[in-house]
Amino acid sequence: MVRTIVVALGGNAIKRAEERGTAEEQFRNVRETCKHILEIIKGGYKVVITHGNGPQAGNLLIQQEEASEVVPPQPLDIVGAMTQGQIGYMLQQTLINYLKEAGLNTPVVTVLTQVLVDKNDPDFHDPSKPVGPFYTEEEARKLAKKKSYVIKKVKPVGEKMYRRVVPSPNPIAIIERNAIRSLIDAGTIVIACGGGGIPVMMKEDGSLEGVEAVIDKDLAGEKLAEVVGADIFLILTDVEKVKLNYGKLNEKDLDRMTLGEARRYLKEGHFLPGSMKPKIVACVRFLESNGEKAIITSLDKATEALEGKTGTLISR
Amino acid sequence: MVRTIVVALGGNAIKRAEERGTAEEQFRNVRETCKHILEIIKGGYKVVITHGNGPQAGNLLIQQEEASEVVPPQPLDIVGAMTQGQIGYMLQQTLINYLKEAGLNTPVVTVLTQVLVDKNDPDFHDPSKPVGPFYTEEEARKLAKKKSYVIKKVKPVGEKMYRRVVPSPNPIAIIERNAIRSLIDAGTIVIACGGGGIPVMMKEDGSLEGVEAVIDKDLAGEKLAEVVGADIFLILTDVEKVKLNYGKLNEKDLDRMTLGEARRYLKEGHFLPGSMKPKIVACVRFLESNGEKAIITSLDKATEALEGKTGTLISR
Repeated sequence: MVRTIVVALGGNAIKRAEERGTAEEQFRNVRETCKHILEIIKGGYKVVITHGNGPQAGNLLIQQEEASEVVPPQPLDIVGAMTQGQIGYMLQQTLINYLKEAGLNTPVVTVLTQVLVDKNDPDFHDPSKPVGPFYTEEEARKLAKKKSYVIKKVKPVGEKMYRRVVPSPNPIAIIERNAIRSLIDAGTIVIACGGGGIPVMMKEDGSLEGVEAVIDKDLAGEKLAEVVGADIFLILTDVEKVKLNYGKLNEKDLDRMTLGEARRYLKEGHFLPGSMKPKIVACVRFLESNGEKAIITSLDKATEALEGKTGTLISR
Repeated sequence: MVRTIVVALGGNAIKRAEERGTAEEQFRNVRETCKHILEIIKGGYKVVITHGNGPQAGNLLIQQEEASEVVPPQPLDIVGAMTQGQIGYMLQQTLINYLKEAGLNTPVVTVLTQVLVDKNDPDFHDPSKPVGPFYTEEEARKLAKKKSYVIKKVKPVGEKMYRRVVPSPNPIAIIERNAIRSLIDAGTIVIACGGGGIPVMMKEDGSLEGVEAVIDKDLAGEKLAEVVGADIFLILTDVEKVKLNYGKLNEKDLDRMTLGEARRYLKEGHFLPGSMKPKIVACVRFLESNGEKAIITSLDKATEALEGKTGTLISR
């Protein structure tokens, strides 16, 4: 039986930290990324792809701000939708090319995805996710007043230490799940929930409305994995293995964890919030929802990790 | 038997000329637009939607230019992909809300769409489509040199009379046609080919690559209508009926045209290039490719026109 895998790509799979983010750079990275995805497809898996959008949304927010006197900036739900288009296109085109080169005719398609959040999510009262440019104290003060942004100090030193923070609510449901499922059933490789999905909430009357928020892409990816009935949830990030006692002298690589161990390590505070922590939480949820195994590793180790040779495996 | 209709929305369906383009304004317009689409759906048609992106791409190009010292601008294929995300999201969410309110559970989904063009299309040698901001003569000269833009004088008077022009090649094929078809077969309302589709060409080795171009959205919409086997192609624009002798003293409304008449009027130069002309060309192609009827009318007359009460009907 063919097994379904949801692959969650980190930001570095599309734009590296040291790069400015030209189309050439991003396409180069996407080609590298898609080589690894092609290997997974050749391995006989049904592949569903999701990805982050931090660097792209960040660049778009800067562009919006620089031009705000001339063109009205768009809110975060629209920014999310735009980056889903941007990144989805690059992945979709590149993967189509590689599949064709490999003699495969599998269609690849990006589905614009809205993800439902709870309007009473506690993160709306205490925003935690930094987005967009860094500001000086004076700029921060002005923006906080003018646009009612919540701005926090995110660096201890430097001229620009401030950044806007927005809510990062928990994903509850994927609005376009039926379309995603029917595409997968028809043999299509689907790219969905990009950037954690476009955050929407449900109003009293049952209608959907975008919200100024950013959903964690691994938590949204996990929801996607549930919805498509994935067997494996593969998180590709910038480390080969998850570390215990991260940042401490007794730091050590983890080859595998049981669900119980993962829960315990989370409780003990081994993982960095906004970084490894949501990834582990996502893996725990995946296993709790009946997923078979979750793997965290780096992009270039993806196939090896699937063969059990490296990465961190989390299973029940 | 349920009939399939492709609805092509003009720019004014999402952003009006007098507006700046805030998210509030655009959502307000989209709500108005979706009311009419809902009526078509209630009329028992299988609806496929496509739309323009001129004003949104224009705003994004201005933002990119204003911030170009800080963030690298993206090329037109990526800009197209981003606006597909932006507009697709607004249409998708609003239509889902209206369908739910009407007690219908039909899924609605935006498919990121690439449209193939011929790299030898004559328009690559003589670009015709104005995009982005207006420039002074000095700005135009600088940009032409710095970015190798082709810049043309597009207004006879004023301070800023110049604008970048890009190729508007003919659409040949829709890359994501299989995904679009399987979604429609599964009962989904599909939004596709937004902004004329992301323009791509095929390289010698058979791989796809984005090009700096903008495909006419009505010509791409016609290709979409062919691909989904539509019975009706409905172009919604800012006039209720097509005019013969446009702009002349003997100008008159056309209630209907045969395919032969449409071809003759085209030859006689009755329609404005870049405006009504590509719409008529699109209708002619649709009928030639076995479509049953094409209708051109304004958004608010859509349902009346489908009932044969107004608009311009083109049939074989």
